[in-house]
Amino acid sequence: MKRYRNGEIWDFEYEMPLADGASGVVLGLDGGTTTTVCICMPMNPFSNSQIESLPILARAVAGCSNHNSVGETAARETLEQVMADALSKCGSKRSSVRAVCLAVSGVNHPTDQQRILNWLRDIFPSHVRLYVQNDAVAALASGTMGKLHGCVLIAGTGTIAYGFTEDGKEARAAGAGPVLGDWGSGYGIAAQALTAVIKAYDGRGSSTTLTSSILQKLGLSSPEEIIGWTYADPSWARIAALVPVVVSCAEAGDEVANKILLDSVQQLASSVKAVVERLGLCGEDGKGTFPLVMVGGVLEANKRWDIGKEVINCISKHFPGVQSIRPQVEPAVGAAWLAWNSFMKEFQ
Amino acid sequence: MKRYRNGEIWDFEYEMPLADGASGVVLGLDGGTTTTVCICMPMNPFSNSQIESLPILARAVAGCSNHNSVGETAARETLEQVMADALSKCGSKRSSVRAVCLAVSGVNHPTDQQRILNWLRDIFPSHVRLYVQNDAVAALASGTMGKLHGCVLIAGTGTIAYGFTEDGKEARAAGAGPVLGDWGSGYGIAAQALTAVIKAYDGRGSSTTLTSSILQKLGLSSPEEIIGWTYADPSWARIAALVPVVVSCAEAGDEVANKILLDSVQQLASSVKAVVERLGLCGEDGKGTFPLVMVGGVLEANKRWDIGKEVINCISKHFPGVQSIRPQVEPAVGAAWLAWNSFMKEFQ
Repeated sequence: MKRYRNGEIWDFEYEMPLADGASGVVLGLDGGTTTTVCICMPMNPFSNSQIESLPILARAVAGCSNHNSVGETAARETLEQVMADALSKCGSKRSSVRAVCLAVSGVNHPTDQQRILNWLRDIFPSHVRLYVQNDAVAALASGTMGKLHGCVLIAGTGTIAYGFTEDGKEARAAGAGPVLGDWGSGYGIAAQALTAVIKAYDGRGSSTTLTSSILQKLGLSSPEEIIGWTYADPSWARIAALVPVVVSCAEAGDEVANKILLDSVQQLASSVKAVVERLGLCGEDGKGTFPLVMVGGVLEANKRWDIGKEVINCISKHFPGVQSIRPQVEPAVGAAWLAWNSFMKEFQ
Repeated sequence: MKRYRNGEIWDFEYEMPLADGASGVVLGLDGGTTTTVCICMPMNPFSNSQIESLPILARAVAGCSNHNSVGETAARETLEQVMADALSKCGSKRSSVRAVCLAVSGVNHPTDQQRILNWLRDIFPSHVRLYVQNDAVAALASGTMGKLHGCVLIAGTGTIAYGFTEDGKEARAAGAGPVLGDWGSGYGIAAQALTAVIKAYDGRGSSTTLTSSILQKLGLSSPEEIIGWTYADPSWARIAALVPVVVSCAEAGDEVANKILLDSVQQLASSVKAVVERLGLCGEDGKGTFPLVMVGGVLEANKRWDIGKEVINCISKHFPGVQSIRPQVEPAVGAAWLAWNSFMKEFQ
């Protein structure tokens, strides 16, 4: 166990009693592109069916921990600090930790996973079980009570589909960012809407009520000003915040907005279909049941034009056994459940 | 005439003879997103038909001067320095300048134009005629001997179509950057190709030879690594540099690459069509002749799959009077010709 180089993060441990009689705790982390959440739960030997009744001992929140966005050093500091905060809040220390599941965005390759595992290994005593996953996996677990089985579709600012079979095969689709065509995401929908405004203005596309609605929302007076607006700060979340405007225009009957949402439904459904087919989640006859966990602002029921519902309708046509789930807990709880489950499996 | 605040840029003028007997010079600037070029030409009273025989007195080069990319202060410093360099090289000073045409990317709105004009006004004596344009206009002028008439299509890293009628009406299409759908550009072509590789890999799209060709070009071993590669440096030019790979794959018969290039042709042609129609460049019967100046790496004749030629074929079907021109001089020369022409018109 190394002490952190600035020598402060773990200082609270020295002020705690030496004896630590409890059966220990697990940590679940959900590290997204805007916030990182760490949940601490007790390692009580409940049976699997009771996992949802495990109490949350502590919850800590920090900023972005995606190493692609903020760099390796800042990401590591953020993750270490948020774990220390959670343990400190519930009066536990690293020696009480039995398992950690770190589900963080930007884990796209086994080398990413291994790098983060090596570094976690330096922080915790050697008996602690460590699991590193893409943040999508925590979202899946939040809908399946910590079981890695089925598919999750996330559509917020970005989008990804991720799935697991019961025997541990995994597959993903999308989740590669807007440069690489995540067009069903909130960013994708909003960028298509902005493009439609520019095309209507310069004569390449049909006129649309998106023009007046988006200009009003952004406080701009002409579509030309949108160019400067996007250059000024091309952050994906800032652009994705325009999704409700697109939904409103579609609900009011705008054809261009409607087509953008229909395209987005197709894109999102195609990600799920790709994962389900590669993993054979639907069984050999294509009618097997499997859970589809739906997460993210784009999939939440918006008034009449419900993107999530349309995606499920589209997927049901191909896979009648799909069982959609909208989780009642946050992904960090899913990560903690996952840590708990993985630990129990290893020591059964 | 202000001296520059760091008091160095214009110092060379103090070492020059007081008398300045010549009939003066014009400056033409092409300020792009990677380089800025300034051309100095004599203001000799040639007739218009001889404009292409005007000698180039000096040529100076600097970095990016797009205020959207590098900020206002850096853009201004770059532009001022490159003008001083050009004048100094040919032994002229600001008092000899008759006209300046500054054609710079990022001029998307009359307010951009006015801001730059105000600032140029501070640098030069009040008798100097000043013209500020989008950099696309210099490219047009480079193909029309400095006349603002017809349409220019630029397709390099980005793309824009820009046109003028003889009585001074202007229109543009695209040129809004990748967020806003410039999909016919080099960036657009390459981003679609990278997307096709990701989609083939995760099961959303057909397999394609783009996968092996692009991975080899980038020195990567798996499509998953492309995600990290784009995050590492999402500069448009770095991505657009993959266009030759896409062209090679299409030439070798890859369907996915072929479709990407065909889509790009449609996108580029639709930009030209939008401008020609809005300005009525093709006359009332749609058969009138007008120049179409073609500029940029994407439109240059690549081996067999010639994007520029396909765009012209596509446009000829709608506007049989289109006369395509591939300029023999760089856009900065077009800007200098434009300064010369505009000055002569005002003082005829």
